[in-house]
Amino acid sequence: MTAELEAEITAQADLVRKLKGDAKSTEEDKKSAIDKLLALKLSFKEQTGKDYAGTGGGGRQGGKDKKKEEKSAPKVEEKTDGKKQSKLGIEVKKDENYSEWYGQVITKAEMIEYYDVSGCYVLRPWSYAIWEGIQQWFDAGIKKLGVKNCYFPMFVSNAALEREKTHIADFAPEVAWVTRAGNSELAEPIAIRPTSETVMYPSYKKWVQSYRDLPIKLNQWCNVVRWEFKHPTPFLRTREFLWQEGHTAFANPKDAEEEVFQILDLYAGVYTDLLAIPVVKGRKSEKEKFAGGDFTTTVEAYVPVNGRGIQGATSHHLGQNFSKMFDIAFEDPSGNGQKVFAWQNSWGLSTRTIGAMVMIHADDNGLVLPPRVACIQAIVIPVGITAKTTEEQRKQINDQAEKVVAELIAGKIRAEADSRDNNTSGWKFNHWELKGVPVRIEVGPKDLEADQVTAVIRFDGKKRTIKRDQLVAELHKTLEEIHQAMYNKVLESRNAHMKVTTDFEEFKRLLDDKFVLLSPFCGEPACEEEIKKHSTRDDGDAGTALMGAKTLCIPLEQPKEALPEKCINPGCAHKSKAFALFGRSY
Amino acid sequence: MTAELEAEITAQADLVRKLKGDAKSTEEDKKSAIDKLLALKLSFKEQTGKDYAGTGGGGRQGGKDKKKEEKSAPKVEEKTDGKKQSKLGIEVKKDENYSEWYGQVITKAEMIEYYDVSGCYVLRPWSYAIWEGIQQWFDAGIKKLGVKNCYFPMFVSNAALEREKTHIADFAPEVAWVTRAGNSELAEPIAIRPTSETVMYPSYKKWVQSYRDLPIKLNQWCNVVRWEFKHPTPFLRTREFLWQEGHTAFANPKDAEEEVFQILDLYAGVYTDLLAIPVVKGRKSEKEKFAGGDFTTTVEAYVPVNGRGIQGATSHHLGQNFSKMFDIAFEDPSGNGQKVFAWQNSWGLSTRTIGAMVMIHADDNGLVLPPRVACIQAIVIPVGITAKTTEEQRKQINDQAEKVVAELIAGKIRAEADSRDNNTSGWKFNHWELKGVPVRIEVGPKDLEADQVTAVIRFDGKKRTIKRDQLVAELHKTLEEIHQAMYNKVLESRNAHMKVTTDFEEFKRLLDDKFVLLSPFCGEPACEEEIKKHSTRDDGDAGTALMGAKTLCIPLEQPKEALPEKCINPGCAHKSKAFALFGRSY
Repeated sequence: MTAELEAEITAQADLVRKLKGDAKSTEEDKKSAIDKLLALKLSFKEQTGKDYAGTGGGGRQGGKDKKKEEKSAPKVEEKTDGKKQSKLGIEVKKDENYSEWYGQVITKAEMIEYYDVSGCYVLRPWSYAIWEGIQQWFDAGIKKLGVKNCYFPMFVSNAALEREKTHIADFAPEVAWVTRAGNSELAEPIAIRPTSETVMYPSYKKWVQSYRDLPIKLNQWCNVVRWEFKHPTPFLRTREFLWQEGHTAFANPKDAEEEVFQILDLYAGVYTDLLAIPVVKGRKSEKEKFAGGDFTTTVEAYVPVNGRGIQGATSHHLGQNFSKMFDIAFEDPSGNGQKVFAWQNSWGLSTRTIGAMVMIHADDNGLVLPPRVACIQAIVIPVGITAKTTEEQRKQINDQAEKVVAELIAGKIRAEADSRDNNTSGWKFNHWELKGVPVRIEVGPKDLEADQVTAVIRFDGKKRTIKRDQLVAELHKTLEEIHQAMYNKVLESRNAHMKVTTDFEEFKRLLDDKFVLLSPFCGEPACEEEIKKHSTRDDGDAGTALMGAKTLCIPLEQPKEALPEKCINPGCAHKSKAFALFGRSY
Repeated sequence: MTAELEAEITAQADLVRKLKGDAKSTEEDKKSAIDKLLALKLSFKEQTGKDYAGTGGGGRQGGKDKKKEEKSAPKVEEKTDGKKQSKLGIEVKKDENYSEWYGQVITKAEMIEYYDVSGCYVLRPWSYAIWEGIQQWFDAGIKKLGVKNCYFPMFVSNAALEREKTHIADFAPEVAWVTRAGNSELAEPIAIRPTSETVMYPSYKKWVQSYRDLPIKLNQWCNVVRWEFKHPTPFLRTREFLWQEGHTAFANPKDAEEEVFQILDLYAGVYTDLLAIPVVKGRKSEKEKFAGGDFTTTVEAYVPVNGRGIQGATSHHLGQNFSKMFDIAFEDPSGNGQKVFAWQNSWGLSTRTIGAMVMIHADDNGLVLPPRVACIQAIVIPVGITAKTTEEQRKQINDQAEKVVAELIAGKIRAEADSRDNNTSGWKFNHWELKGVPVRIEVGPKDLEADQVTAVIRFDGKKRTIKRDQLVAELHKTLEEIHQAMYNKVLESRNAHMKVTTDFEEFKRLLDDKFVLLSPFCGEPACEEEIKKHSTRDDGDAGTALMGAKTLCIPLEQPKEALPEKCINPGCAHKSKAFALFGRSY
């Protein structure tokens, strides 16, 4: 497979060179070809464990590569001599190369394992537990709204998939097709769901006969596949990902629209209340909205390290577009005999949440977990055990550590002890710091004597001693404080990089200074395209940081400033309709 | 698509005829061709809503078919005139045609919706809630054993898939292949997991360096695809299904084997403690065990209506087979420098559980839900409201119904009121009976007066009155009694149809009388094949009830009788090794 991939890379590199030299080729073409080249190179790295070194490079099956492949697991280092222990940590600073840094954080914190199918990744327990935390919280939230869980097939017939034209036009290039089972070719290829509107709505048609059959409020937790050819990134852009998708149908537009915003509030809650990330709630522009829907709402987060916006989750009002295509209709209850089409919503939140959390909160020492989704909130480590420690003292310390854990668990704090005797406490400090556990609790001889423990906060590195008899109460308070402090830090950074501007020159300058901008906007897709084009920096390589700005959203809460008449795009002749939040984005 | 399918059916029917007329064709060939024909006809029915009527049949797009398609939703009947209301119920008796009966129960109880991809079905909230109940219980159980959840990709490269030869030989004919994404052919086809041994174990290799890295105990809840060509049945044999798969690795065989049985006990618990179904725990025979593993354990249930055994869930000890193929190894901790391969298990439980539950407990009036997995345990229905009822009385009754529900929910009983004013209470009784809610609580004028409610048990139809002030306590007791009674009823039926026999003539006779048999068995696959062949009834059509017997398991708890030396197969020259449980099976 590697040889084929090398051939593909060579061919793609040729194409990129050709496009660059061709005056007729568009920026879009070039960008897309470069993205594909980068993706292929990444596949190569994933498969071989080393960077693609051009056609001259050899020895890809050698023992050296194998070492490299294993490097992602910190445990390997553990066995080498003391001096190499520093390799356990992150070897590059977030500010210097956040892309490399991100890769190290997610692998060394044991969240992700790479996989031999490009764009697919293993979610290890350390990241999956965060997803479980989000699932639990959100699932309880939607059940209170009367939503019920179900499961629809992941396969879609071509006929169903193509029913709504705008919708399929958007998804078709990324649809994966099953064409063979065992050794038999299928009579007709079957698609894997990229999203389930077209999977579910034929059933909705069967279920809806009368207005009394509405509302239908269903949700499913499942995997979906979008075979993107852009550079994949674990959590943030993957070919298979996990999500929930809610699909609801109502007898009138008012109830449907109301739900769109109820769900949006829950999505905002996932970010603010669980992940300690502030978000801006808003509507997507015409250009960015969900294909086939009436309007899309979104929660948008800000990533301080690169100043990019990241879409957190979207809640769509589909209006009657799908219900007309799928004939989801009922007789007007007023008795006039008229056929009325249902009003529908769909809304989704994916494992991308975890990527946003890492990108926003993690630091040069590794992951920093927001306490409410941390699978372990407090790691208890016996300390001060030396060669001189007597067996009895050692036992006392370890017993105390276990007692502390038991007390914390009884007090509803997720805690574990790390009493492994084959690692130094220094190694353990690094290990759990890397994994981002919010609080480290040290139990040593001095703590025993003074009837206390020492708590070290992962987020800010601060130490404090806690009296044993106040342990649970103090720790609950501490965890809450950490959540608030993490949230506030991101909020401050975002507020310092979000500005109202009506001047496109300032707009472009601030964009390069990692700002997101609130600017008057006419709403036209063509105008948004121009803004993107004119804010693209073409003075470098194909680095994604230089992409043009797009609308992240039209914030529900508009700036206090009066809306100027002119759109931010100097060449635009339309009147502005609202302040939009612009930024480079994921 | 229908025209193509018709062509396929015609071709397959020709093949079946040819095989039947060909003296050289084996029974296995014929059986498999017939199964495929039946599957194709079912696909036809699913797509068109009517039975395949041969090449002469026409008008498949007509209005009549559309009516038929909609029949599966009881709500359609609801709107037709009063006389047709009986159609709401099951129209065929379980004893007379359990296959047709099963299809009606699962659709009319709103568990399943048919789908336009053959072998795939929609799990509606009414069935999915049962799965959620099972998930919750089992997930808590494995977490206590230290198992952690994770998620591995659903795509498998061909290289990984083919690593263990016995394993892939078993799964290859049913593997679905993705060969295209958008309009691009993939360089190499990618398989969809039929199970995840080959997906996960390359990662296990990376994670295991030292015995300290073991045990690894991971589980995932996910979908898998097995593109079977046999006749599909919702829940019981579907091309995509939901399951959990646990994959664990240990540093020694003892710990691994111990876990196999811990998991088996949890699986037994899902059946006995949640679904009220007795099971026999045992080992699978050499012929029936998991391909590539050392041994397979299973829980086997008995289906009274047709006397067939049904495999409930399996827990496999893989030994070192996979660890050798995938190089999951560590250095002997004794320091002798030797490489030791890990001992592995895998274990899975699927949505088939729900099918077993329906097949075993449901009756001529529809579904009967075991109380512990019932999404609604008590449905509260206002009764005795007539044309003469005053508005005040009506309000009193409805208020009381709501109060009862609130009390039950506060008392941890899952309850709902059905206060819809567009349906008669008679219609509601039928509706909730069909859906299998364990207890119906009627609140009427007389109940109000006497400060009581009337409870009707779905399982046995018995009525009792409960004093209002004892409601919660009495209902908890009642739900427990129902669970026990449901369990005991199945247990009695099974015990009356399970017999030790050493006589193959009796064996065959009892098999036709819906028995499962405990008989001495040598364990040889060839011998099991012969027993199957000789117990096949060839005096009819291709009805599945006439299939030969296979070993369901070798029960862990053996009969008290001394084991005869001779195997049950008269033609077998080997000595018997244990009593095996034989039966026709799913």
